[in-house]
Amino acid sequence: MTTAASKQRAQVNPGTAGADARGTIFREVSPEQQAVEQQLVDHVVASFEACEDPRLKELMVALVKHLHSFIREVRLTEEEWGTAIDFLTKAGHITDDVRQEFILLSDTLGASMQTINVNNAAYADATEATVFGPFFVEDSPAIDNGGDMAFEAPGEPCWVEGTVTDTDGNRLAGARIEVWEADETGLYDVQYDAGKRAARAHLFTEADGSYRFWGLTPTPYPIPNDGPVGRMLDAVGRSPLRASHLHFMVSHEGARTLVTHIFPEGDPIGWKDTVFGVKQSLIKRFEPQAAGTPTPDGRVIDGTWSRVRFDIVLAPAGV
Amino acid sequence: MTTAASKQRAQVNPGTAGADARGTIFREVSPEQQAVEQQLVDHVVASFEACEDPRLKELMVALVKHLHSFIREVRLTEEEWGTAIDFLTKAGHITDDVRQEFILLSDTLGASMQTINVNNAAYADATEATVFGPFFVEDSPAIDNGGDMAFEAPGEPCWVEGTVTDTDGNRLAGARIEVWEADETGLYDVQYDAGKRAARAHLFTEADGSYRFWGLTPTPYPIPNDGPVGRMLDAVGRSPLRASHLHFMVSHEGARTLVTHIFPEGDPIGWKDTVFGVKQSLIKRFEPQAAGTPTPDGRVIDGTWSRVRFDIVLAPAGV
Repeated sequence: MTTAASKQRAQVNPGTAGADARGTIFREVSPEQQAVEQQLVDHVVASFEACEDPRLKELMVALVKHLHSFIREVRLTEEEWGTAIDFLTKAGHITDDVRQEFILLSDTLGASMQTINVNNAAYADATEATVFGPFFVEDSPAIDNGGDMAFEAPGEPCWVEGTVTDTDGNRLAGARIEVWEADETGLYDVQYDAGKRAARAHLFTEADGSYRFWGLTPTPYPIPNDGPVGRMLDAVGRSPLRASHLHFMVSHEGARTLVTHIFPEGDPIGWKDTVFGVKQSLIKRFEPQAAGTPTPDGRVIDGTWSRVRFDIVLAPAGV
Repeated sequence: MTTAASKQRAQVNPGTAGADARGTIFREVSPEQQAVEQQLVDHVVASFEACEDPRLKELMVALVKHLHSFIREVRLTEEEWGTAIDFLTKAGHITDDVRQEFILLSDTLGASMQTINVNNAAYADATEATVFGPFFVEDSPAIDNGGDMAFEAPGEPCWVEGTVTDTDGNRLAGARIEVWEADETGLYDVQYDAGKRAARAHLFTEADGSYRFWGLTPTPYPIPNDGPVGRMLDAVGRSPLRASHLHFMVSHEGARTLVTHIFPEGDPIGWKDTVFGVKQSLIKRFEPQAAGTPTPDGRVIDGTWSRVRFDIVLAPAGV
């Protein structure tokens, strides 16, 4: 490669200069080349001038600026561009009603968690939010308080109880609680069969804001890693494992809907969670119970079980 | 919305503050909230620490930083995040072997053209590159010099001729020229039928570096706009029309492969090209020819035709 060409194809930002894919250190891009590239950015930004929705315009302009800055800073090669197109295409083709590779991508890049952060700023002592994940479905079965959401999914039984209150400490009656989790083999119901419903339910708090149900003690499991996101994690040396967790979505009129998980204390994955969902306040002690220990509801259980308390505080709507 | 909450959910960058989707002016994000958001960025960046491929690591870290900056700057709502996931899902589902919505997306955001710019810096008087587009196929029919690449595709005949040289003016024999274009109804062959081949061919330069063939006078046409990209263009008030053009891909041993178009002078779309592909040096005069004008190869043509000269200069490989 000639010196002139090296200069022409060099890094825009000297701060990120380094050995590139072609094994050459690039330090700068010629002013002429920078002008060509900036002119294109300006041209693309100007193409959104007629957009009548100011928020959409703001989003598209910011997206274009970051996208072009990324391409220019890393000096994206045409082959790398092709790899990105191919990645998105494969992600699209593996995605269906129950497998959502774009959510996995957003999750593993921390984009889902950052969106949650931006929209769920700390408010008084309201319970913190975390990622939604790709496995929620709308039509979970209803259970009564004290019912079993496992529906025969394999795993160690876990008694879950707590209250739902507002940030002033008022007990919230009739709050809707959706709960869902993977079974001990690491699979959600819909991964067996799109129509299967197990380890998933909804229930409502009692008049005193309390709730209780049987679920499964959470165990770590890999996100679905037989697709392009799994191959990306493998290529960068990252584990596909999620920290063990139990999903909650809690809603009540006048309250900000809370999407969160609880994580067992002492989990082997914990902070290495591949979707960056763990928060200190959401780590709970799941108390192990020896076989034969009487259950809170007088159930007879053949083997060990666990119990956890999760008191939920909802922020007001609109904060 | 409370004042406290407004502060917590405000814009990171005061420079982009404005009326947001919720109709409130945000000026700043609290230092506590900024720390939460930055901590997540750092956590995600650190997850690529073990990546053994330094170029892949550089790309992923830069991608994550821009993605998170975008989300934080625009204060992306969870609903907008959902719209983005839905957009990508629909783009994936409409994409198949001959319809490539992700390339259309890249094209219409100027990302394809910027990648071309980054990788095809001006070199001496080498012909400029432009976007590849989604309609190239590998198995174009071969034609001889002077042959007709239209294969009965409808449109006004156009005689195309020129030479292929290197940047020292040496004529390049045996250079492979792939040409493809839309017919006068605005469709490429593969849009009629994945197996159809028309208005598409390849040929090789003669010993003196010259080439010539019959094609069609290019006409403007919309990019496929019945999918999510078309709906995006509509939502932002942009036209889906491409400037009229004829595609070339020219390769020769020892030369940088050139992917480009030529654009007719005086085209009604021209610089408003929805994929930002037009460059001044690629605008050529297509000379209109009255019906009955003798053709260069003594062909008898029933009606008008046009002719254009396109002399192609290839940069050396590796620049």
